[in-house]
Amino acid sequence: MTSKTSGPETARPPGPRPRPGGRTARTRRQVLDAVLAELGEHGYDGLTVEAVAARAGVHRTTVYRRWRDVGGLLADVLDAAGTDDWGPPDTGSLEDDLAGLNEEIHDALTARPPVVPALIAASFRSPQAAEAQRRLWDDRYARCEVVVERALARGDLPPGTEARPLLVAATAPLYHQLLLLGTAPDPLLARRAARATALAAAAGAFTGRQPAADS
Amino acid sequence: MTSKTSGPETARPPGPRPRPGGRTARTRRQVLDAVLAELGEHGYDGLTVEAVAARAGVHRTTVYRRWRDVGGLLADVLDAAGTDDWGPPDTGSLEDDLAGLNEEIHDALTARPPVVPALIAASFRSPQAAEAQRRLWDDRYARCEVVVERALARGDLPPGTEARPLLVAATAPLYHQLLLLGTAPDPLLARRAARATALAAAAGAFTGRQPAADS
Repeated sequence: MTSKTSGPETARPPGPRPRPGGRTARTRRQVLDAVLAELGEHGYDGLTVEAVAARAGVHRTTVYRRWRDVGGLLADVLDAAGTDDWGPPDTGSLEDDLAGLNEEIHDALTARPPVVPALIAASFRSPQAAEAQRRLWDDRYARCEVVVERALARGDLPPGTEARPLLVAATAPLYHQLLLLGTAPDPLLARRAARATALAAAAGAFTGRQPAADS
Repeated sequence: MTSKTSGPETARPPGPRPRPGGRTARTRRQVLDAVLAELGEHGYDGLTVEAVAARAGVHRTTVYRRWRDVGGLLADVLDAAGTDDWGPPDTGSLEDDLAGLNEEIHDALTARPPVVPALIAASFRSPQAAEAQRRLWDDRYARCEVVVERALARGDLPPGTEARPLLVAATAPLYHQLLLLGTAPDPLLARRAARATALAAAAGAFTGRQPAADS
């Protein structure tokens, strides 16, 4: 667990990249940082190539040439967030791993300025950003599958428990309450969703693709 | 359970209103139907007062005077959806009630044209629509609390089980997968989320506000 803003959902503000590599990489970092700052301050409606270029101290033709438009900028922010070394918590307990993960999501969704919510909202408006957002989420959930694999290896879950639906069930209430329903930050939400999912998983809710539908 | 598109999340396309009441009500219905049709066909970006007025066969000054702008139109669509007599399923089983509810949500979120997703996306862009969307969700969840109350009365749940977090947990995976993650329609999703939540609830996951956080 590295950063407070890097749950499976988040575009972590691009920090040091794997291969910093000179001026091109530096320009990219400046531009992507500017995108996040503009988004956090003004939301999608304040996001223009001109504003990003000015904030980054980069000529706007450079931005147009490399990213083309706002959708390209957003997609690259999201893709860049997928190149970090983030990993889920490893506490020795499924419920605690999920609670730690959910706390990261809770922090990301309630942080000020609201960069992550602004990115998600923007992905409703740019198909290119929506694609990148889904790639990032997919990558984050894939990295989190180890949480379930470890619980299976410890014998804490019924054999055949599937990781992805379990992880979606554990994390979805955070997005639903904080992003869609717009409820206030709730210090118990992360733990409660983790606990409910761990209890359901122990009871066999995520084994196989044919649950009680045929009962 | 009345309409396929009237889960706790949905703005049901305004059908017959409680008190139809003459020309004003007829105009409103025409205008709100036009909003839904424009949204379904063109999304938020195609939604203008002019297009709505033309489609409804109403003078645009009438629309401007009564709804002012696109945000006002969206908010009224959502408010109108809250005046129907929708209620959740009553099957005699918590899991089946939740599964039926989730099937309605699944249908609404995957229907063509995608009116409900377009409304939710629009609520990210208009504060007035966002407020109305939250009022509608709040109303729908309040109506669904009876599902939990009935299960409590049957003795199927631990005393003290709270309805709202249970309902959010049951429904959130639908929104998360279909709206945010953009996965394909999944015929098992509704049942699986219902079953996981019913199992967690039976195990005490939604009793009181102090779960295992202090463990």
